[in-house]
Amino acid sequence: MRSMYDLIAAKRDGGILSEGEIREMIRGYTCGEIPDYQMSAMLMAICLRGMDGAETAALTDAMLHSGDVVDLTEFGHLSADKHSTGGVGDKTTFIVAPMAAVLGCKTAKMSGRGLGHTGGTIDKLEAIPGYRTALAEVEFREQVRRIGVSVIGATGEIAPADKMLYALRDVTATVDSLPLIASSIMSKKLAAGTAAIVLDVTVGSGAFMKTDEDARALARAMVDIGVRAGRRTAAVITDMDQPLGRTVGNALELEEVLTFLSGDDTGLEDLREVSLTLAAYMASAVHGYSPEEGYRLAERAWRCGAVYEKFVEWITEQGGDRRWLTDPGRRAEAAYRRTVVCASDGYVGRMHAEQIGLCAMQLGAGRRTKDDAIDFLAGIRLLKKVGEPVRAGEALAVLYTSREVLLDAAEERFLGAITVTEQKPDARPHVFDVIA
Amino acid sequence: MRSMYDLIAAKRDGGILSEGEIREMIRGYTCGEIPDYQMSAMLMAICLRGMDGAETAALTDAMLHSGDVVDLTEFGHLSADKHSTGGVGDKTTFIVAPMAAVLGCKTAKMSGRGLGHTGGTIDKLEAIPGYRTALAEVEFREQVRRIGVSVIGATGEIAPADKMLYALRDVTATVDSLPLIASSIMSKKLAAGTAAIVLDVTVGSGAFMKTDEDARALARAMVDIGVRAGRRTAAVITDMDQPLGRTVGNALELEEVLTFLSGDDTGLEDLREVSLTLAAYMASAVHGYSPEEGYRLAERAWRCGAVYEKFVEWITEQGGDRRWLTDPGRRAEAAYRRTVVCASDGYVGRMHAEQIGLCAMQLGAGRRTKDDAIDFLAGIRLLKKVGEPVRAGEALAVLYTSREVLLDAAEERFLGAITVTEQKPDARPHVFDVIA
Repeated sequence: MRSMYDLIAAKRDGGILSEGEIREMIRGYTCGEIPDYQMSAMLMAICLRGMDGAETAALTDAMLHSGDVVDLTEFGHLSADKHSTGGVGDKTTFIVAPMAAVLGCKTAKMSGRGLGHTGGTIDKLEAIPGYRTALAEVEFREQVRRIGVSVIGATGEIAPADKMLYALRDVTATVDSLPLIASSIMSKKLAAGTAAIVLDVTVGSGAFMKTDEDARALARAMVDIGVRAGRRTAAVITDMDQPLGRTVGNALELEEVLTFLSGDDTGLEDLREVSLTLAAYMASAVHGYSPEEGYRLAERAWRCGAVYEKFVEWITEQGGDRRWLTDPGRRAEAAYRRTVVCASDGYVGRMHAEQIGLCAMQLGAGRRTKDDAIDFLAGIRLLKKVGEPVRAGEALAVLYTSREVLLDAAEERFLGAITVTEQKPDARPHVFDVIA
Repeated sequence: MRSMYDLIAAKRDGGILSEGEIREMIRGYTCGEIPDYQMSAMLMAICLRGMDGAETAALTDAMLHSGDVVDLTEFGHLSADKHSTGGVGDKTTFIVAPMAAVLGCKTAKMSGRGLGHTGGTIDKLEAIPGYRTALAEVEFREQVRRIGVSVIGATGEIAPADKMLYALRDVTATVDSLPLIASSIMSKKLAAGTAAIVLDVTVGSGAFMKTDEDARALARAMVDIGVRAGRRTAAVITDMDQPLGRTVGNALELEEVLTFLSGDDTGLEDLREVSLTLAAYMASAVHGYSPEEGYRLAERAWRCGAVYEKFVEWITEQGGDRRWLTDPGRRAEAAYRRTVVCASDGYVGRMHAEQIGLCAMQLGAGRRTKDDAIDFLAGIRLLKKVGEPVRAGEALAVLYTSREVLLDAAEERFLGAITVTEQKPDARPHVFDVIA
């Protein structure tokens, strides 16, 4: 067995590490035998030399087995999860999770919190009074068994090696590596235990992956890891060059979800396309029929109201206030709002999604650092999206916050994120491709 | 000013660090503000992305100024130093230092100890009863002023940043980087304060650089650093594919030096060529005449006995026992010896210098780890060298040690290091090239 020194030297020279070597390295690092300074040299060597598919799969496997693995074997091939690489206004989980449940998937999902410009599903769920994001595993499984869907926060015992490595990568400029990104995401997804995994790989100004090429490479790497681990895995590459839907911010996004689930998708074509596609691939992976058939079934379930009912059942089953969901008058509104108006005539040519995410964060909807508190009512309602005509003086968006003092800077940032053009921009597809 | 994180990311992406950034990084690291795990990621990025000449010079300068700089300004342009990148049987300092002194150089040299297969000048000097390797700086300068030469051990205050970085590189597989090797060597040489620096860059099986190409690149990088720092610098590329001269081991090498200095260079053509060339470039750098003129003057000084006299003056001035030098009967011999004989007829085709260095170490002449004690009488006398004819049963070498039990394994290693061929091998030059 080669020593850690030998492994660093091998990777530095572009060599390949064996599965056993990678497992031993992760074991040694998590138990403190291998110091940070050796691991950071290895991480930099991986950043610059890469890892092949077998190495990436072995790294994922070693990290996944560094902690607890959720036992969903009782659901056989029916258990399914959906994971997004992050975005702005990304509320698909609230639609896809109950939709897949209606189509017979056992949707057992662990989600995270938001940081920086991206929101987090757990934060959005906490905007609902009473919703419990922390269930014991036995309770979690029991709910999935009974109603087909549950979403909880990730426990501290999922892939602790990934947590340690990520903290080190974060301070040594070694985050930006395809095999390290893919293995980090997939170690948590595999530990979450579902038989099928559908990945939403976002691409554009608000996504982690800025180019189509990078997004495809990440999608391929993650699908390869999933398949090597024996899971049915697909990756849907979706647009995140502008926010998804027309709201950004926790309570605002839930309100939009309720509107959509009630059957009204006016101006929400992107949310509809992405959600139906993700649900279609989940159902397809679980049941074996074609994605086209899955799409047709998903759309029917949505249009007939079954998904709305499943959503209400899921949220209330997990402690959420039913009246908050069903009676808009029960939902509080932010104390302050500002309508942002357009300076010139033309078309919305660009909405820089990351800047709009940061604008929402600035209003209180997100976190600058892990310990920041969230203003659930803060956020942005987009009245115009890319390609829509605007006139000088017309409203582009409404900003919401509980702290009036934040409005001026947020408005300035919002306007900086919008480009108005004379020509109508070419339409971008909502779903670029599927890797399966 | 960019943060350490930003600097790592910049180097990871192949970018250039400014002189100020490098200085601040070395300052931050030596005072503990920058943790090991960030520096090791940076070192790996440098290993794989390299550094340009300005960066390498800035790194050298930052390390050199992390500690004391020897003040030799009183000697003006006359102070000179010679440094070897390491070898087996490398005893040139004992010849070149007094030779350069005879030619009017002020040879003020700090040397190190040996480790592994390479010997160290300070160890060899300690084989002489009474020799003081630790002089105070004022005493050191005083001796150089009076007799033109002194050799002492490096003090603990020379380039402490290099010591810290080297210790980290040693455990993170980041030693093997041209700019890091060149800056490490040159930071110590520049801190030693001489106006002229002549580098002996060895190449071959017993050297740090195994190929001609690598040796030339290191030579160029070091000369570039020296010139940027305003020192007259030259690098002589010399053969280290077999040991230099015919002895390996501390007392044995000194005995060979005394033989050579007394005018007898039988079978020591390599030692003569390398020593005269190094002294020629030192004198040339100091006085401005041509290296050919330097060579001619060096050879004359050697042949007339002036260098021998200067050698005895230097050693005795620094406390060494004159009778040990001048009366062979006063010198102890190792308690055990073994004659290694050849198994077949032919020519010595190869003598693997590193293996022969390790054989000498095994006999007690060197250190496996920093804390090992040295047997000054142990070593190897080579009776045959590459290209010389041998017959089955003829003696190849004599092994010396104070511990009989070590002889069998050492003999086996020695025989493994020798290749006997039917054809006489092509001669290798002793001096390959000079970079100035």
